[in-house]
Amino acid sequence: MDANEKKVRASFAKQGLMTTLGAEMISVQPGSVEIRCGFNAKFTQQNGFVHAGVITSILDSACGYAALSVAPAESEVLSVEFKVNFLAPAVGEAFVARAVVKRAGKTLTICSADAYAVNGGREKLIATMLATIMNIAEKAS
Amino acid sequence: MDANEKKVRASFAKQGLMTTLGAEMISVQPGSVEIRCGFNAKFTQQNGFVHAGVITSILDSACGYAALSVAPAESEVLSVEFKVNFLAPAVGEAFVARAVVKRAGKTLTICSADAYAVNGGREKLIATMLATIMNIAEKAS
Amino acid sequence: MDANEKKVRASFAKQGLMTTLGAEMISVQPGSVEIRCGFNAKFTQQNGFVHAGVITSILDSACGYAALSVAPAESEVLSVEFKVNFLAPAVGEAFVARAVVKRAGKTLTICSADAYAVNGGREKLIATMLATIMNIAEKAS
Amino acid sequence: MDANEKKVRASFAKQGLMTTLGAEMISVQPGSVEIRCGFNAKFTQQNGFVHAGVITSILDSACGYAALSVAPAESEVLSVEFKVNFLAPAVGEAFVARAVVKRAGKTLTICSADAYAVNGGREKLIATMLATIMNIAEKAS
Repeated sequence: MDANEKKVRASFAKQGLMTTLGAEMISVQPGSVEIRCGFNAKFTQQNGFVHAGVITSILDSACGYAALSVAPAESEVLSVEFKVNFLAPAVGEAFVARAVVKRAGKTLTICSADAYAVNGGREKLIATMLATIMNIAEKAS
Repeated sequence: MDANEKKVRASFAKQGLMTTLGAEMISVQPGSVEIRCGFNAKFTQQNGFVHAGVITSILDSACGYAALSVAPAESEVLSVEFKVNFLAPAVGEAFVARAVVKRAGKTLTICSADAYAVNGGREKLIATMLATIMNIAEKAS
Repeated sequence: MDANEKKVRASFAKQGLMTTLGAEMISVQPGSVEIRCGFNAKFTQQNGFVHAGVITSILDSACGYAALSVAPAESEVLSVEFKVNFLAPAVGEAFVARAVVKRAGKTLTICSADAYAVNGGREKLIATMLATIMNIAEKAS
Repeated sequence: MDANEKKVRASFAKQGLMTTLGAEMISVQPGSVEIRCGFNAKFTQQNGFVHAGVITSILDSACGYAALSVAPAESEVLSVEFKVNFLAPAVGEAFVARAVVKRAGKTLTICSADAYAVNGGREKLIATMLATIMNIAEKAS
């Protein structure tokens, strides 16, 4: 595991929300990240589907960590903004978010990400995100 | 409590995620909704602030229910898409999302919403959303 | 030229703005469209680059017509909303917008599109759009 | 006219697109800007309404200049990204875009803006933008 992947995985492990959601970081490559979480009735909306905010959460973490995977060694990242389109109900046994860097700048990195519902091993596209992430100087901690 | 408020509050009560977040629906008026949740370390990102996805979740529910509060009696609502800008870290004892309808159409309703961090009774603007919500025929259940 | 391409090209020809910009529809396939326009000092911002609004205009038309290319025969399309990220200054001899349909629904179609600056035959990614388009019943005219 | 307003108006005057659209800067206050342009058949879409890209152009310039009106003296501004919702067809004698700063940071400024169609002196809300603008060091020129 290289230094960037180590840094990404260490930061992910500190996200209380990802632990609470039971989310796992499946893969980290330079400029791309995959996060997966299982269905849980504790995270639903009124129809029993997974809440848009939960799908957004794994998409956002995936975008942030895709950006971090190519950021300078001394940087942390921060979500400036994102847009998400919801394409189909979040119905599935599990949900996967895959983010890629579209452009990495000195200050800002732009990522896109897709979310899929997994049913019986088959994936269906359910949401897509376009996100702006900012590099900031790492805080001593 | 009028019929629309009753319908909004009943739907909110069925959102597993809102229960899990400890979120409360503070106010429902025709065309506006306020949702509040307390800080909880289970919902944080890597710096111990509340995760952007959680702030997005209460903003999204607020927008959806603001739209539902003015929708035809037989309609349900669905989030088509939203954009969120994060203006300051989500640091606070509690977080409030306030949504208003900007335009209610037959099929689509556009809402804007702001999120605030509450500290010692003072509010600070931390995020703002612009959302598109769709009216759909209510499912028999 | 099939019926859908004919419909797309006929509608594009009626867009006064595309004529004014000198924009051409380079290609129409089911679910994808390419539009190109040359540099013109009449469409710049304060630094002499092409204005973000012009790049947005060809991205928006590309998304709308990608959606129309797969819409029911009796439908027109309408831009509900879009988001654009600007990745590099719009400096070039010409600009190309390429849109693809990510999901075509009965009422709403979601498209993504990228814009490129062309210099000496080489393309550089300068902007990316995520758009929501609505099918509406065609007006008799 | 104070130094910031002078800087904003001088930059606006250099935007070839605004001249081409016949757009005027109606008002500049610290943190808010108003731009207006008349209807012109050269800037329409297929139904004879003003093209979404034109409404976006005046919204974008309004947001950029609202940000510039509160930026440090030595800064220029750049559009990072924006989202626009279209609420009603752009039908009118003239169109007005009004932008306000929601948060001005050292690097990034977030603005919201509304666009109105003007008919017989009455205004109708037709579009709304949420935009991220970046301060950059002014280029010597």
